Amino acid sequence: MVTVINSAVIIGAGNVACHLGRALRKVNIDIRQIAGRGEEHAVKLAEELKTDYILDINNITDTADLYIIAVSDDAIKEVINMLTPTEQLVVHTAGSIPMSVFENRFKNYGVFYPLQTFSRNRKINFDNIPICIEANSQINSDKLMQLAGLLSRKNLLINSGKRAALHLAAVFASNFTNHMYAIAYDILKNQNLDFSLLQPLITETASKIFEMEPRNAQTGPAVRNNISLMEFHLKMLQNDKLLQDLYKTLSNNIRRYAQ
Amino acid sequence: MVTVINSAVIIGAGNVACHLGRALRKVNIDIRQIAGRGEEHAVKLAEELKTDYILDINNITDTADLYIIAVSDDAIKEVINMLTPTEQLVVHTAGSIPMSVFENRFKNYGVFYPLQTFSRNRKINFDNIPICIEANSQINSDKLMQLAGLLSRKNLLINSGKRAALHLAAVFASNFTNHMYAIAYDILKNQNLDFSLLQPLITETASKIFEMEPRNAQTGPAVRNNISLMEFHLKMLQNDKLLQDLYKTLSNNIRRYAQ
Repeated sequence: MVTVINSAVIIGAGNVACHLGRALRKVNIDIRQIAGRGEEHAVKLAEELKTDYILDINNITDTADLYIIAVSDDAIKEVINMLTPTEQLVVHTAGSIPMSVFENRFKNYGVFYPLQTFSRNRKINFDNIPICIEANSQINSDKLMQLAGLLSRKNLLINSGKRAALHLAAVFASNFTNHMYAIAYDILKNQNLDFSLLQPLITETASKIFEMEPRNAQTGPAVRNNISLMEFHLKMLQNDKLLQDLYKTLSNNIRRYAQ
Repeated sequence: MVTVINSAVIIGAGNVACHLGRALRKVNIDIRQIAGRGEEHAVKLAEELKTDYILDINNITDTADLYIIAVSDDAIKEVINMLTPTEQLVVHTAGSIPMSVFENRFKNYGVFYPLQTFSRNRKINFDNIPICIEANSQINSDKLMQLAGLLSRKNLLINSGKRAALHLAAVFASNFTNHMYAIAYDILKNQNLDFSLLQPLITETASKIFEMEPRNAQTGPAVRNNISLMEFHLKMLQNDKLLQDLYKTLSNNIRRYAQ
């Protein structure tokens, strides 16, 4: 049994697979194969990483040190069921899927969850991304932490329950936040105003919370309970009932947090 | 009539007054007075800016080049009614209050709206903050643009309607986003996890939207329509009905944007 991971197979070719593959290649991990479903970008990823692309999961090599299941959360179980049982180390990369998904199927397993939002054409520096590790044994945990240490300075051992909470927090801090940006973008677009006007504001909002608690950094009409301004905003949104609802729900929650 | 603004009186001592006062002082605008309601931080601000503090608005000097009403939106009308009519230039600093609030009361007026979120103890560099200018005449507009140009490289003339849209967009992009951070903070705190774990994620989320449209940057369970994961998250939030509602409303809106 190896004590250091030198080679890996990546199953999946989505955003996480793609960015993780590139990062691992950069630290000289031998990416033996990319397994995908024939998507054009999956084939391209294999080319980029100068490795083999396989369509049939039965053709996966059995000699890699690590098998990384980097598919969407709801496809993980399916992939696990399709994989030939191996004694090699198998991980998934999902925040919300417990490690127990591997139980009774593999001997050596764990989780390798990079806490970041990945978009295909955006370069990502792994250096400060927290990589959240969990494993079914000390030796597997050591191996994964060693591998994570090659990619990032910020790694942590964390169990499935805490990882799920971290993922939920990330949905608010990233996915929902991005949606706020999308709404702002549309409001400005309707007025032929350039979205870049919001850049200093967005950057400052995302910075100051690491110097003061977000609760104490709250500004705007809701926290001041400026009812006339909130009514004015709701009137501006009157053609979009769902957006009005969202504005109200968010403002009510801000009020609640302020009390 | 002066063609360049050399002196100003600031009415108000909240976050905007405070940061704007400091910025104007830095570019050698003579801050003649700060008018407040006796709040401790207002007195401190006057001391910091080495200027006079006045409680009675009737004691305002009538020789300043500019009068800046930097009070909360809902107090602007009240202040306007209390101010002795003057021929000097008067502005407010609010995104959502139309310039017409000054009509029939002053001869020279406008709006000076710095698009940023201000927290008292956080240093702000005005250099790249868009300052949104509106005025009732070309000469007033020129004066305000000249003043804005001393503070920032990014200034724009914008009418009240567009400014209101910009402010509404800012509420989504900043106030509501900050609330997402506050929720994430609490979720992590409940698990004894450090909020700083989210820093690379939050920074990347706030950066990539200026390279790709926010709509195209959307990641997470809602945009993938991962129903089982969303149900899992709702279950995690089951002790907080309002937060569950918020999660659902946000996810529905993300789904709608994705279609």
